Amino acid sequence: MSENITVAGLVATTPRHLITQDGLPITSFRLACSHRRFDREQNKWVDGETNWFTVTAFRQLAINASTSIAKGERIIATGKLRVRDWDNGERAGTSVEIEAEHLGHDIFWGTSSFTRTVLVAEEEVGVESDQTSLASFAPEMASSAK
Amino acid sequence: MSENITVAGLVATTPRHLITQDGLPITSFRLACSHRRFDREQNKWVDGETNWFTVTAFRQLAINASTSIAKGERIIATGKLRVRDWDNGERAGTSVEIEAEHLGHDIFWGTSSFTRTVLVAEEEVGVESDQTSLASFAPEMASSAK
Amino acid sequence: MSENITVAGLVATTPRHLITQDGLPITSFRLACSHRRFDREQNKWVDGETNWFTVTAFRQLAINASTSIAKGERIIATGKLRVRDWDNGERAGTSVEIEAEHLGHDIFWGTSSFTRTVLVAEEEVGVESDQTSLASFAPEMASSAK
Amino acid sequence: MSENITVAGLVATTPRHLITQDGLPITSFRLACSHRRFDREQNKWVDGETNWFTVTAFRQLAINASTSIAKGERIIATGKLRVRDWDNGERAGTSVEIEAEHLGHDIFWGTSSFTRTVLVAEEEVGVESDQTSLASFAPEMASSAK
Repeated sequence: MSENITVAGLVATTPRHLITQDGLPITSFRLACSHRRFDREQNKWVDGETNWFTVTAFRQLAINASTSIAKGERIIATGKLRVRDWDNGERAGTSVEIEAEHLGHDIFWGTSSFTRTVLVAEEEVGVESDQTSLASFAPEMASSAK
Repeated sequence: MSENITVAGLVATTPRHLITQDGLPITSFRLACSHRRFDREQNKWVDGETNWFTVTAFRQLAINASTSIAKGERIIATGKLRVRDWDNGERAGTSVEIEAEHLGHDIFWGTSSFTRTVLVAEEEVGVESDQTSLASFAPEMASSAK
Repeated sequence: MSENITVAGLVATTPRHLITQDGLPITSFRLACSHRRFDREQNKWVDGETNWFTVTAFRQLAINASTSIAKGERIIATGKLRVRDWDNGERAGTSVEIEAEHLGHDIFWGTSSFTRTVLVAEEEVGVESDQTSLASFAPEMASSAK
Repeated sequence: MSENITVAGLVATTPRHLITQDGLPITSFRLACSHRRFDREQNKWVDGETNWFTVTAFRQLAINASTSIAKGERIIATGKLRVRDWDNGERAGTSVEIEAEHLGHDIFWGTSSFTRTVLVAEEEVGVESDQTSLASFAPEMASSAK
């Protein structure tokens, strides 16, 4: 099985959009997911700890994301989790990445208006996964996304 | 554990919005989730079978959903699954409901623009679940949502 | 996307095991998933409402399940949710089914001992989904599983 | 929301069991989740990339896991994902941890027999999350679990 995950959080970096030499559109940004919890001593909701993810979209989703999503906005993302060790010669670490299958502004926090761009004829491209991590396609983006 | 679920689909009914006598805002609509699959004989993507859900939102999410989401749009929803038998005297059946925790337009299918309505001070209300089904609050809506 | 779901619950019926004319092993049972919640008035944990599912396994998972899982045991199941309307001429209804990808006894409630049956050579069959519902393969079981 | 996740994988380390000074039982191990994919050139299923997780259980689940789960076994785990940066003075890194709510041997790969240990009276302890990471309770285990 693939590790599917759904997260809701705050877009913490300006989304980066690029097209690979092979013509593949990619959009990527960092997402901060804080877990609110009720603090009995303070008698109010406080931020708990935060999970950080690199969210990556490919193809049509990448194109739509690049014109829709901005730093500071609240979104939801669902897709496949990828935990990868990386080493760029100077530094090494672990990247925690979500390859997004669907993205949307989080209507819990505001209102959203929608403009359809994918026509029915185009729907046939389907929603298959790339089975690839950001590092495979755009290592320079993976590195800068830390 | 609660049965959490994330779905992506087509809003199939005009969302209904009401406020209970206790002042609780509720928004509810039907969502059709079709599973595209590649048909080798036709050599193209086709619609597979469809899962139908009643999606219900409460409070601020209900208010934002009522002004954001329209019939015919593509959305993603994440929340708690509730499978409930119902019987209104005339008919009986099984309702499959998602109590939404987050909703968003699906950027896979188009572009979305976002306007924040929840201010930081209001964030303190948190995102706790109601632990209640639509039928408890608005049985007339549950019935008509079939 | 497929609607993936993970549930934990009580096996409520004796699992039924059969092999179709095409040689496909199928195991199926009903699962009751109750949501415990803390009742402040009673000052203790109580059962909340219950989600009922028909859990279905195919092939090797069906064979292993038929010799491992018994009525009354606590298990966890993960797989694809299928909501299907059915009509057998006499009655009609909605079936809420999980096509299991993985099953296990729930170690939250007891201890479990494991005997591996799938050898490495057999691992190559993979874990692809059938993209089919119980009703397609074994309508008589689907009907009796209500 | 919390980031819930369900994974299936191979137990890659001997589970470590300890009891904190406060009397809290903890069990922890590393889990390797490989994604099988069909390689068209080789015409067979091959291992794709692997996600690694530290799985941690608390209380009764920790006690049952310590006597049930061994290195080399196939299991499923469901719980809350926690992505945490750590720094023990000598080294630093990112830990990707699942705080397990339920664990079970994966019947996809073998058979399992179950012995119930939690009696009905004990069920009242419920399944609430600790809202805490392994590092908070047992930093020495978190460090060695890398």
